[in-house]
Amino acid sequence: MTVGVNESTNAPRIAGGHDGNCVFRIKFPRKSRMVQKVKAAFQAFGSQVHDVDPVHNSTTHSTRDFTVTVNSTKTGELSKHLTDSVPGLTVVAFSTNVMLAHLGGKLEVVGRVPLTNRSDLSILYTPGVADVCLAIRDDPDKAFNLTIKGTTILVVSDGTRVLALGDIGPRAAMPVMEGKCMLFKRFAGVNAVPICLDTKDPKEIIAIVKAIAPGYGGINLEDIASPGCYDIERALQEALDIPVFHDDRHGTAVVVGAAAINAAKVVDKQLKDMKAVCIGTGAAGLTCIQMLHALGLRNIIAFNSAGVVHKDRTDLTDEEEWLKKHSNRRNFKGSLERAIKGADLVLGLSVEGTIKAEWLAGMKPNGIVFALANPKPEVPPEEALKHVRIMATGGSNYPNQINNALAFPGIFRGLLDGRVRKVTEEMKLAAARALAAVVKDEDLDEEMIIPSVFNPAVAPAVANAIKVIAEQRGLTRRSVKN
Amino acid sequence: MTVGVNESTNAPRIAGGHDGNCVFRIKFPRKSRMVQKVKAAFQAFGSQVHDVDPVHNSTTHSTRDFTVTVNSTKTGELSKHLTDSVPGLTVVAFSTNVMLAHLGGKLEVVGRVPLTNRSDLSILYTPGVADVCLAIRDDPDKAFNLTIKGTTILVVSDGTRVLALGDIGPRAAMPVMEGKCMLFKRFAGVNAVPICLDTKDPKEIIAIVKAIAPGYGGINLEDIASPGCYDIERALQEALDIPVFHDDRHGTAVVVGAAAINAAKVVDKQLKDMKAVCIGTGAAGLTCIQMLHALGLRNIIAFNSAGVVHKDRTDLTDEEEWLKKHSNRRNFKGSLERAIKGADLVLGLSVEGTIKAEWLAGMKPNGIVFALANPKPEVPPEEALKHVRIMATGGSNYPNQINNALAFPGIFRGLLDGRVRKVTEEMKLAAARALAAVVKDEDLDEEMIIPSVFNPAVAPAVANAIKVIAEQRGLTRRSVKN
Repeated sequence: MTVGVNESTNAPRIAGGHDGNCVFRIKFPRKSRMVQKVKAAFQAFGSQVHDVDPVHNSTTHSTRDFTVTVNSTKTGELSKHLTDSVPGLTVVAFSTNVMLAHLGGKLEVVGRVPLTNRSDLSILYTPGVADVCLAIRDDPDKAFNLTIKGTTILVVSDGTRVLALGDIGPRAAMPVMEGKCMLFKRFAGVNAVPICLDTKDPKEIIAIVKAIAPGYGGINLEDIASPGCYDIERALQEALDIPVFHDDRHGTAVVVGAAAINAAKVVDKQLKDMKAVCIGTGAAGLTCIQMLHALGLRNIIAFNSAGVVHKDRTDLTDEEEWLKKHSNRRNFKGSLERAIKGADLVLGLSVEGTIKAEWLAGMKPNGIVFALANPKPEVPPEEALKHVRIMATGGSNYPNQINNALAFPGIFRGLLDGRVRKVTEEMKLAAARALAAVVKDEDLDEEMIIPSVFNPAVAPAVANAIKVIAEQRGLTRRSVKN
Repeated sequence: MTVGVNESTNAPRIAGGHDGNCVFRIKFPRKSRMVQKVKAAFQAFGSQVHDVDPVHNSTTHSTRDFTVTVNSTKTGELSKHLTDSVPGLTVVAFSTNVMLAHLGGKLEVVGRVPLTNRSDLSILYTPGVADVCLAIRDDPDKAFNLTIKGTTILVVSDGTRVLALGDIGPRAAMPVMEGKCMLFKRFAGVNAVPICLDTKDPKEIIAIVKAIAPGYGGINLEDIASPGCYDIERALQEALDIPVFHDDRHGTAVVVGAAAINAAKVVDKQLKDMKAVCIGTGAAGLTCIQMLHALGLRNIIAFNSAGVVHKDRTDLTDEEEWLKKHSNRRNFKGSLERAIKGADLVLGLSVEGTIKAEWLAGMKPNGIVFALANPKPEVPPEEALKHVRIMATGGSNYPNQINNALAFPGIFRGLLDGRVRKVTEEMKLAAARALAAVVKDEDLDEEMIIPSVFNPAVAPAVANAIKVIAEQRGLTRRSVKN
């Protein structure tokens, strides 16, 4: 079955560039040897045909599914080629391997205990379950033991800032949230439920999340545009007795923090002595700057889309006002190019093209650049590496991928394990240090400042860091010392 | 590990009566052969000791977990016996088999597709997932194909009317909702997510469910007190383009309808000729009466807690007003005892004790009684059966259990399969007929008017009935004719 993705509007735009299986639903006149002709047309384009499945016939036409290999950026071109090559042929629909993998959704809700016979039913549902309800009514904290509250979190988005796609709404945001929930499970055994909200009003979002939270052990906020994301996170942190964590901000900051720690080690500098130039003061950018500050950096110059942030700017957001006190102490008012002169670290959380590679020549020796714009970095790594020693991006096609998946699974694993009441700045700092420490000294070099997301040591290390701080600060409901 | 359920407040109150494993955490002075003595004390009570697990020792005391068999109603008595029998012994906590089965919660959220390597990650999460987001942004109905919307529903409660326990709040309601979600999966492969709301305000509940609905394919409302439940269901049905179904009302009505159809068959009467007396006009009771009416019964007399419902009553709820037009056409104003005289069917959805067995002697021959009060029926079946031919209850300890689990899994299976826009009265009626038809003629008798919840034919039959009507009425997004 194909998904019926119309080529003209839905040709893959981002995942592109990979060869993969694709199913083409093709309708053609019912004449002899037509399947042969269609196959030949695919092959003439360089696409291998793996399978031909019947769909249905009308008196005049036949419809079949052709499973073929094609580069995901060339499906539109291939469709045109087919139509041109075989008279009367129509491409009804096609599905890339990405679409095929998403058919039916990516998550499933299953029972953790067998429900096979009447005895199970009486224990897990009525009448037995009433005892469990009463136990929790009498002592609400028992919910952590006796329900999914101790094991499950909500991933909440309003779909206003999804990946680099912007405000695509709750339905279209679901694939990302489902993927996020998969990652929680895959990397840290955390059960996560995706909730995409059909409202953009921060007040409503706050009220809704407050109301749906009691059954769950934590809230991961995701892909919510600023400035709403700040108010939402703050209000929920105050209102709820479970951790609330906006991953776009803090997950990114934890991984950037870990990368900065290890990069400094590689170039043999102290973070506190470094000069950092940070481009982008959106929710993620600002939180990363705050992480660098927490790690000891004191010479930070930040830029937003209107230029350098200095003490005389009157157009800053409430959140950016923080920068007046904690960055740019000499009140520098020059260009980004000038700011980069003499910098040790350049951090971009903006858009493709904001950094010119030649500017990086002005950095101090052993320069470090984290160019985290998505889907393409602020500066091409090949160009940047002519001038700097360490380069990290948000993508997996270069070494040193700054990937939130290194942080959020372990963070929530630790929060759930300790039944932690809230997540603190100190915990995030500890998580960054623990993540950095996963890269062993003998592995550490310019092209390995960050572990792989598939490294099984990552989540336990991060989780443990969270639990230790939570325990020290009396924020756990359950001791984690065995 | 035990749950730490304190015996004095949390002794099992409802599930009781079953022998089962129970873990007692016992603290006793560190003296020689003490485990022997504790074991002997259990055995003297008639409890078999299966296992003894170490917990920890202090300088003066030892703590151990004893896994024993005990009747769930006698745990308190056993605790006292142990304390009296062994000097210095303390029962720290105990967990019944019900509590043990609930440890860690009953649900898990897992990936439906493997996430093993980088290629999987690029397809299921960034960058590949962006294609899927864009496809849904451009055509929102694709969410049914490409996300869990096509396979998953929400089970929503505010915890105001949970089982027979009343308003126990969202945390304490979770075990029931988790159990419900397990049943959805077990009996019909429907993925279901429990959401218990920390608000009782119908307006807020409506706003919240509207906002969280877009990611999901249906809404099962559960254990919400009336009259709020009516407004909530109606408003959501109007606002949403997915089915909204208050199971306490309609699930019960479907199963009662099926039972009535088959009971009439057994006693060889026509439903349209029968006189029914219905006790209880709460949300479930009233909806069952409406089902009987839809099945053709025209001679119905209803009672609420203030007596018989007749045309001159001025104290009826908006919903009960329906009864003035559709029941009690002769405006009977007498007692329940008198109403039961000459009745063919007595339906109770009230509380234990509202029906006196001797009244049932006045029913027509081949009387049918559905006494569905929970946890104990309106009249003891043993007593009732002296006077009537067919008896059904809500419990599993008698034949003919009216169990919603016969209806809701198949109903939502059908609704999801057809991507149905809304659930209608006609669908519920068809579901009742289909459920009744699952009991084959050769199986049908006084003690088998309803199939077992474990009968694998039930959910497909109900699902199919729903799909057929939905298709006929143009309410599907996807044809179900293969």
